Amino acid sequence: MSIVAVGSIAFDNIATPSGRAENILGGSCTYFSLAASYFTKVRVVAVVGEDFTAEQESILKNRGVDTRGIEHAEGRTFRWGGQYMDSLNEAKTDFTELNVFEKFQPRIPAEYKDSEFLFLGNIHPTLQASVRRELNGVRLTGGDTMNFWIQGTRNDLLETLKLVNVLLINDGEAKMLAGERNLPRAAQKVLAMGPQALVIKHGEYGATIFFREGAFGIGRHPFRAPTLPIDEVKDPTGAGDSFAGGFMGYIASQPELNREVLKRALFYGGVMGSFAVERFGTERLQSLTRDEIEARFQVFRELTHLE
Amino acid sequence: MSIVAVGSIAFDNIATPSGRAENILGGSCTYFSLAASYFTKVRVVAVVGEDFTAEQESILKNRGVDTRGIEHAEGRTFRWGGQYMDSLNEAKTDFTELNVFEKFQPRIPAEYKDSEFLFLGNIHPTLQASVRRELNGVRLTGGDTMNFWIQGTRNDLLETLKLVNVLLINDGEAKMLAGERNLPRAAQKVLAMGPQALVIKHGEYGATIFFREGAFGIGRHPFRAPTLPIDEVKDPTGAGDSFAGGFMGYIASQPELNREVLKRALFYGGVMGSFAVERFGTERLQSLTRDEIEARFQVFRELTHLE
Repeated sequence: MSIVAVGSIAFDNIATPSGRAENILGGSCTYFSLAASYFTKVRVVAVVGEDFTAEQESILKNRGVDTRGIEHAEGRTFRWGGQYMDSLNEAKTDFTELNVFEKFQPRIPAEYKDSEFLFLGNIHPTLQASVRRELNGVRLTGGDTMNFWIQGTRNDLLETLKLVNVLLINDGEAKMLAGERNLPRAAQKVLAMGPQALVIKHGEYGATIFFREGAFGIGRHPFRAPTLPIDEVKDPTGAGDSFAGGFMGYIASQPELNREVLKRALFYGGVMGSFAVERFGTERLQSLTRDEIEARFQVFRELTHLE
Repeated sequence: MSIVAVGSIAFDNIATPSGRAENILGGSCTYFSLAASYFTKVRVVAVVGEDFTAEQESILKNRGVDTRGIEHAEGRTFRWGGQYMDSLNEAKTDFTELNVFEKFQPRIPAEYKDSEFLFLGNIHPTLQASVRRELNGVRLTGGDTMNFWIQGTRNDLLETLKLVNVLLINDGEAKMLAGERNLPRAAQKVLAMGPQALVIKHGEYGATIFFREGAFGIGRHPFRAPTLPIDEVKDPTGAGDSFAGGFMGYIASQPELNREVLKRALFYGGVMGSFAVERFGTERLQSLTRDEIEARFQVFRELTHLE
């Protein structure tokens, strides 16, 4: 089945203790799409500038990603520079040039309208809501957001959350959105805002999914998928977006939507996030095999599996 | 089977967003012993001052803990004051009065000499080593340490690590000890220092156990036991020591020593840590039932269990 991914395409300058890279392809939509492409058909909605070349687009096309929804605007592509010299857990932003992304108005190609799944990347909540309303036939919508929108456009975000089935955010964002420091209680408050399920990402420790009562089947408890860095962490950029791509991509590949599928999806999210950080930028996500993905799924599963 | 626990007994002043408490019984040995007492016979080696009353000792005795190894010295008991107003993940120390603990020289009662298990709480590594040498018939020794000893008495600590079978420390301590930021690689470096297994505690995210090749059976991979706060976190004090008590106590209760036992022990560690933080001080650890412990073990197991 098909998933539409809306978000950013960017050029990144990145410095980590393992090295540095300049002007490499990045952006939330890029990482999401590459990760999801191993599971399902991905259709991208994003904007790029005149500096975006066919060679860069081919990174997505080579993975079968549908790029007809990429708008080519006048000006330069979104650029971001950041470093992880002090901590691999948090980027220190050197610069942000929004460029063509500043005026981004997502336009959904007619050919995308039959898509069953939607992922709303981290853009203004009002734009997220308008995309969701336009694609009103989707079976499931996933969404991301960040501190900037939680604090700056809270009312708009609360409207959007009513349209999102699964929200994917990190610990700090969940606690800020809920105004509550205890994670399970923060989760209950966020679920009361609209989503049927909430995925809270814990960085190198994995992620937990909390369910609204009765959503996607029965059961009282949340579920945790652990991760563990397998190789060297060369570049953490895009780990969260790759997690979302693995999670949503796996869901979109399954005939049914139930808790067991969402639990497995949480593992696949961790798997794709762990691959993403092994190389700079999207390099590792460009050339994986399904066998490598399944092998790591088994490693992560055994990581917490009692006889 | 019996486990000897060496460490501190203290009076704590604690402030958290849920309230405050003064002069309550604390110390690493206290939390460890109470947590372990639900699984096995615990024998304490510690020092207290003249202000330590029979009523306080009865908190340990009521759980069947053998207190003959508590030395009553002239002066006041170790006192610590700390707060968690900004973050429940890290204590801000208000004061530390070592008092009688400053000159602590652990003395092992003759009646303890047949003990099969030993836990070396967070004291000077040279004292840890001398206790371990005196109890030279134990089947397994667990040990704790902290940044203070890693930085200040590194050579002494390295000698002690050769005598410890399972080291239990947190992420930051493991990275500091190894001089390595990547967790699995830090774990391999620490294992090369002596221990057959290394438990790295991740606070609210659980803990991971890494094995030296061939130790406690075969298998390539580490193992993670997740935790999740079930109730409100009222007071994080003693969570790590209670984790160690559940972990070591479960091991001491089992006839065999193998990886499956150590994996389950990791879950029981998380269970006891999660109970400890539900009330101030040791309150929750004083009156648990084995049924409550088993029920939470199942919750934590299901937290990551795929069908």
